[in-house]
Amino acid sequence: MLVEVLRIGQRLVRDDRTTTHAALVARAFGASRILMDDVAPDIRETISAVNGTWGGSFEVEIIEGWRRVLAQKRRDGFAVAHLTMYGEPVEEIQGRIASEERVLAVVGAGKVPRGVYDSADYNVAVGSQPHSEVAALAVFLDRIQGGAQFRAGFAGARSRIIPSGTGKRVVGGPGRPT
Amino acid sequence: MLVEVLRIGQRLVRDDRTTTHAALVARAFGASRILMDDVAPDIRETISAVNGTWGGSFEVEIIEGWRRVLAQKRRDGFAVAHLTMYGEPVEEIQGRIASEERVLAVVGAGKVPRGVYDSADYNVAVGSQPHSEVAALAVFLDRIQGGAQFRAGFAGARSRIIPSGTGKRVVGGPGRPT
Repeated sequence: MLVEVLRIGQRLVRDDRTTTHAALVARAFGASRILMDDVAPDIRETISAVNGTWGGSFEVEIIEGWRRVLAQKRRDGFAVAHLTMYGEPVEEIQGRIASEERVLAVVGAGKVPRGVYDSADYNVAVGSQPHSEVAALAVFLDRIQGGAQFRAGFAGARSRIIPSGTGKRVVGGPGRPT
Repeated sequence: MLVEVLRIGQRLVRDDRTTTHAALVARAFGASRILMDDVAPDIRETISAVNGTWGGSFEVEIIEGWRRVLAQKRRDGFAVAHLTMYGEPVEEIQGRIASEERVLAVVGAGKVPRGVYDSADYNVAVGSQPHSEVAALAVFLDRIQGGAQFRAGFAGARSRIIPSGTGKRVVGGPGRPT
């Protein structure tokens, strides 16, 4: 499954840390890129540094307007899944979404324009209580991939974690490819 | 299962939005309280307002020092699960944790003191890539409860969402209990 993430509606400065978290979650949970329409430059630098240390080729793409992006992604064969507490319970539709070849997950910061609901193939609720679009994105990507994202490799990593029940074990380090 | 969340190491202002998200995720994913050692007053107000509208009795508890809290929770029968990218893969230990009667999930903002690793019954990795403690908390609580948290009721809600594939449907509203 090819997964991309579209984040809309973030406000500069106020949402910068949440936007960075959304990008890191997209990367760690198997998406190949995140698209967003306005972003502080240090978010791209953070992601670039994370790719350099921990591998993979996750991309941050700056867009101009979500309407054009949604139309193009639909032409490219993506099913659009908009995450909203008002949507259908994820447990009821995750199986259908898991069978899609390409999924664009749409997450808003705050109130989302009505047109996003109308353009989506799926309006998906990760619980019907208010919480966090970062958390919703993570649980959604975990469920539609059945956890397979944690078994994916990140090519070209300089550092790699050896799982441990007691502390930190890392192989590699700056300048030492593993 | 009784679940509580301990958040440590947050920095005032810089982490306020992330801390609010962590509290909202804890509430929406079935925890009964979040404990934290320093917090902007508006976080408690936000949670109180969310309880008022969407129900339940989720609590924010201000603590003085994580060591004392960990010791007390252990005496109270809680298994301590510290979420860290360096830990054991969640998919390998979620079954054991799911069989615990009381779980204290510990999430740090940034670097966590060595003592937390040593005090934990489980050091749990939600993926071994850097992402977001808010996302890690959500996926962890989802997995150890097998999604049951989304079927839990929130007593006393003034508003309740009717799941919809196409838009927003809400019953109730301010002053009209449902």
